Amino acid sequence: MPLPQEPSIPGGTWGGEWSADAFRKELMDEQVRPEDDAWNNPWDPRGTELRDRPGSYSPPQSPMPPSPTSSFASTSPPNESASAPSSGRESRGSVKKSFNPFAKSSLDEFLIGPEKIPVTEKERIYIDDTENGPRWRPNPTEFTCSVSSPKKESKFHGMKSFIAYTIVPSETREERVRSERSCVSCRVSRVFSKQSVSRRRYKHFDWIHTHLTFKFPFLPIPPLPEKQISGRFEEDFIEYRMTMLQSWVERICRHPVLSQSETFHHFITCPNDEKMWKAGKRRAENDRLVGANIFQAIERPHKPLDILHVDATLDGFSTFLGRLDESVRLAQSTCLDQAKRYQMDFKREHDRVSFSFSKLSKAFETDPFNDGSGLSQALQEMSTAYEEIGTMYEMQPKHDWDPLSNLLFEYRGLIYSFSSVNSLLKDVLAKRRNAEKDAKEGRLEYDQLPHIINHSDTVAYAFEAELAHFQAVRTKDFNKAIASFLKGQISFYQKISDRLGTSLQKFIM
Amino acid sequence: MPLPQEPSIPGGTWGGEWSADAFRKELMDEQVRPEDDAWNNPWDPRGTELRDRPGSYSPPQSPMPPSPTSSFASTSPPNESASAPSSGRESRGSVKKSFNPFAKSSLDEFLIGPEKIPVTEKERIYIDDTENGPRWRPNPTEFTCSVSSPKKESKFHGMKSFIAYTIVPSETREERVRSERSCVSCRVSRVFSKQSVSRRRYKHFDWIHTHLTFKFPFLPIPPLPEKQISGRFEEDFIEYRMTMLQSWVERICRHPVLSQSETFHHFITCPNDEKMWKAGKRRAENDRLVGANIFQAIERPHKPLDILHVDATLDGFSTFLGRLDESVRLAQSTCLDQAKRYQMDFKREHDRVSFSFSKLSKAFETDPFNDGSGLSQALQEMSTAYEEIGTMYEMQPKHDWDPLSNLLFEYRGLIYSFSSVNSLLKDVLAKRRNAEKDAKEGRLEYDQLPHIINHSDTVAYAFEAELAHFQAVRTKDFNKAIASFLKGQISFYQKISDRLGTSLQKFIM
Repeated sequence: MPLPQEPSIPGGTWGGEWSADAFRKELMDEQVRPEDDAWNNPWDPRGTELRDRPGSYSPPQSPMPPSPTSSFASTSPPNESASAPSSGRESRGSVKKSFNPFAKSSLDEFLIGPEKIPVTEKERIYIDDTENGPRWRPNPTEFTCSVSSPKKESKFHGMKSFIAYTIVPSETREERVRSERSCVSCRVSRVFSKQSVSRRRYKHFDWIHTHLTFKFPFLPIPPLPEKQISGRFEEDFIEYRMTMLQSWVERICRHPVLSQSETFHHFITCPNDEKMWKAGKRRAENDRLVGANIFQAIERPHKPLDILHVDATLDGFSTFLGRLDESVRLAQSTCLDQAKRYQMDFKREHDRVSFSFSKLSKAFETDPFNDGSGLSQALQEMSTAYEEIGTMYEMQPKHDWDPLSNLLFEYRGLIYSFSSVNSLLKDVLAKRRNAEKDAKEGRLEYDQLPHIINHSDTVAYAFEAELAHFQAVRTKDFNKAIASFLKGQISFYQKISDRLGTSLQKFIM
Repeated sequence: MPLPQEPSIPGGTWGGEWSADAFRKELMDEQVRPEDDAWNNPWDPRGTELRDRPGSYSPPQSPMPPSPTSSFASTSPPNESASAPSSGRESRGSVKKSFNPFAKSSLDEFLIGPEKIPVTEKERIYIDDTENGPRWRPNPTEFTCSVSSPKKESKFHGMKSFIAYTIVPSETREERVRSERSCVSCRVSRVFSKQSVSRRRYKHFDWIHTHLTFKFPFLPIPPLPEKQISGRFEEDFIEYRMTMLQSWVERICRHPVLSQSETFHHFITCPNDEKMWKAGKRRAENDRLVGANIFQAIERPHKPLDILHVDATLDGFSTFLGRLDESVRLAQSTCLDQAKRYQMDFKREHDRVSFSFSKLSKAFETDPFNDGSGLSQALQEMSTAYEEIGTMYEMQPKHDWDPLSNLLFEYRGLIYSFSSVNSLLKDVLAKRRNAEKDAKEGRLEYDQLPHIINHSDTVAYAFEAELAHFQAVRTKDFNKAIASFLKGQISFYQKISDRLGTSLQKFIM
């Protein structure tokens, strides 16, 4: 018997637990709007487009700031914002899957009592009961993974070109990881070709991303950097995407559940062999522990959870996530804007100062009473210093604003993904409440209720374990990223000061 | 018999020895035009007027950049550019006097042989023949003078208000200066009132400026900061004007000829006694050694000068002065523009960065899983750091851009004044050439020629001595001003770096 639907809860949206609209409106009034604030520049023929920054690729922002009346769920996720239509479409596709990765009927089935699927020990996902609350059991074989050497490759006799990246799991544990974790279909040949290199295209990343999203509906899968059609072979873009893919892979590696996914191991270890790759892909496609079924693989503490406490946790976290989303958007917008100003406006201002001092130097050069005191040369040196400082401004964003912007961009995606995890728990809690009500009023047999409560607790346990993981990761991420940003800024201003010190020595005091 | 007029030389203009128009046009194409380049600022209701800078007074630029076809002599001197009409008028008056301080007939008279005026030893102006060429004999009693304590005073029972400044000659030599140099009319009372303070109003500065301009037509008298009607009691303006008057007085004190002027000594030493002040004023008005007559007071080497060499010197210097004028204008415009950007745009950008990090901090404050790692506090501290850096940008111009701008403003005036000195020599050389031609062709008696040549050499000697002085002073001025500017910039960037270093310590690395 299917569970009755609760009509008052909109499926899969985030519907206003926190006063999103008021908050967003308040923010909008003060928010940086790069398109309103371009510095007119009669010297510079380049426009004020964010993409126009020389020498670096900037991740796109949402093309329009969210309208004050839009609900949170309807704002664009980062990988929906690509300007190329087809890329936008593909990315939207993958996000949609992550948003409602399994049918409602499948969720209902799971809550009541699904068809049992055999779970091997390797497939089990453990939640430990720690003194701080439920936690994912750490991955016993932690590892990292590098994405490098982007190279243009082609197939069909050069008819189709693409960029492929080399994927290498961390060397220190490489052997152990490869022997213990690589998928069965790869293992045999691995033994004979340890040196074979894994090369992956963006479409492979897209495939593994879709798989993880489908398999782990209770986890916020970090979105990929968006696909791009035009300019995808440009050096800046390739480097930017490699950085983002590297960061994406690292984030999966750091996750205690995702990092143990056999399909992910297939993705990072399978050598360049079409047959082996397809075999692993087929295994993944035949995996029955996906969607609602994956909850059967979760081994969690037996203690039932207090539904009021779970509700409060969800509410508190939703409020926080809303605030974090707004502030991360604003901060990323500021990073992009500052990077642009460094490369355009600040550079131009220093060029102007340089030009003025150079003119002054040239005037003193024509001084017929030049006493050889070197004033003209000193002024020229000073002009060069300001020109160099202008160039320092131009090159600086890659040391501070760009990496910080990249992290914030990732977080915008993570936050968006988390909103679907929130929705899942919310749906489950609503169904549980309805079931309790129905049982009380005789519309549901009483012996079905413990199943439902038990299974809804599993979803809640997974949620709490993931919240704890997310908290630890974001504290580390932000501390590290901002410390690195500040170090970049400190050394930047120090370098300017030092450079001017060299100029000062040329003047007679 | 009056000298025949040479119609081909326009009286008192600079007429195109250097390719001013081409050079100016080239410069105009690249020049900073603050009015074209205002940064749009939706946050800031203030306009982009240069005068709008908060917390400081900026010297005005010429209201319009010179049109590419205007001749040098027709561009506005600094003290013509005041926006208040009456101030503009007054200033123009004083500049006009300096431009043609004595009638042509008086110059003719001097060249042929003027009425002898008795010159006392104290009134003599010596030009020494050094191995480097003609030089003013240094002032044996060098001194400086401070302008301080601007205070609003009034007379006619409060009907008329004005600002008066305290003038104090340098203490170390004060006694000697006062006893040896103070004017006769002041000396007696001085002995009895050593502590009496000299208070001077702007109109007194204006009077001494006019006197010096009239008395020493062969010297470029530095112009005064412009008179201002509206806002003249505002603190920023008063402080700015005091700085400029101080600098003006110092420049007179540093000049070997001007610093020995009895009237100038009267100006800096006469106590606040109406009777004594008027007595000194009357003496100055009765001074007959003014205008063309002052050349009678010049004692210079007997050796006649090579007119071709003098011509070449004048040409070379005119070219240099034109270049210097253009580059000083551009540099001053850049200083004003940068000061404005520091106080408006750079400050605003740092405020935005601060605001973004503050929002991020506030979001983390609402984190229900706050682990006490202090991320929110660290972000707030960082936000404060950027806010403080914004304020540092706002306050910085007074330590670097403003003082440099002030020096450049003074030089624009000096260069302008020098153009009338150039014109004087040019007129004299033309008259001498005509006289030589007339003598050859029998239109002038031959015994008049040596007088004319002798007296034109006196003007040329004075010119060369003044060029040498100007050269020494400007090398010192620019070295000092730019070194001071660079020191300001170096310590500024160092402070920013240090401030961010404090923030960095709050993050866990």
